[in-house]
Amino acid sequence: MSSRLDLFIDRMVSQRACLDFAISETAAMSGPVFELGLGNGRTYHHMRRYVENRDIFVFERAVASHPDSTPPEDRVILGDVRETLPQSLERFGPVASLVHADLGGHNRQKNDIFARFVSPLIEPLMAPGGLMVSSDRMYFDTLTEVALPEGAVEERCFIYRR
Amino acid sequence: MSSRLDLFIDRMVSQRACLDFAISETAAMSGPVFELGLGNGRTYHHMRRYVENRDIFVFERAVASHPDSTPPEDRVILGDVRETLPQSLERFGPVASLVHADLGGHNRQKNDIFARFVSPLIEPLMAPGGLMVSSDRMYFDTLTEVALPEGAVEERCFIYRR
Ligand SMILES: C[S@@+](CC[C@H](N)C(=O)[O-])C[C@H]1O[C@@H](n2cnc3c(N)ncnc32)[C@H](O)[C@@H]1O
Ligand code: NI
Ligand code: NI
Repeated sequence: MSSRLDLFIDRMVSQRACLDFAISETAAMSGPVFELGLGNGRTYHHMRRYVENRDIFVFERAVASHPDSTPPEDRVILGDVRETLPQSLERFGPVASLVHADLGGHNRQKNDIFARFVSPLIEPLMAPGGLMVSSDRMYFDTLTEVALPEGAVEERCFIYRR
Repeated sequence: MSSRLDLFIDRMVSQRACLDFAISETAAMSGPVFELGLGNGRTYHHMRRYVENRDIFVFERAVASHPDSTPPEDRVILGDVRETLPQSLERFGPVASLVHADLGGHNRQKNDIFARFVSPLIEPLMAPGGLMVSSDRMYFDTLTEVALPEGAVEERCFIYRR
């Protein structure tokens, strides 16, 4: 059995491997990047560092990130994603080149219920060819699961392509 | 330049590599293990998982760890380490087989000042042959720095041997 430190490292390393893969796969696209869940801001900081020539919008209920990982106000879409995702479809249309979701907490069952609920809200936002990276298994009709890149651990993250 | 996610992964991976090395190097010793700074409890959980036949005592100002990583009450030495380390010398003597310190916050300069202050409080607790793993550079007279194991990143952690 692994320790919580082992699992945590697996999760972080997988997240980074998936993000790096997805950023590079979508590098030629110009649509915005959506970060669902800011938290401490580490993955947002990573995207800001490595995503070039694309806007990054952050969906978050309550901003509480590290000072150097706090997005400018006009890049934050404040509120519950169950409301702000449908609103964003009206605002943006189906243009997202990359969506990263790390919305879960410690309760696996709750995370799964939530993933089922938000999957159809995320799906129409994706541009054709766009990628979706998630810490939870998602439930999409038109997106297909993509094999994980080297370094990512199965079940720790998931990638889908529109 | 690295992202905060990159730095964080380096730190976690280094911490684990150093702990695994130190646990195995001191496996034949019977003196207790001291964890200085419980935090979320991830490294404590790791030690509890991999350290065999040794007591683990946790030094912490205010316990706020994950439920499954909270030590039993009689293994917590509650209070500021600047007071509890000298008290523990009286209680235990120079018997620690392994001491892990992760007491720092985000301010490097403050961490360094604190490391200078607690180094002479940790030093007399160590058993001969015991190892000390730290996230910050320490200032010991009688302990010598040990080369990092494979997988650990220089400057992200430090190992010392009595
Ligand atoms: C970075 S966290 C430790 C994280 C831990 N290694 C983990 O993996 O979850 C540092 C902890 O040290 C504790 N701490 C810092 N200074 C202290 C002091 N002077 N006395 C006692 N505890 C202290 C803090 O309360 C905090 O919980
Ligand atoms: Ni948990
Ligand atoms: Ni910081």
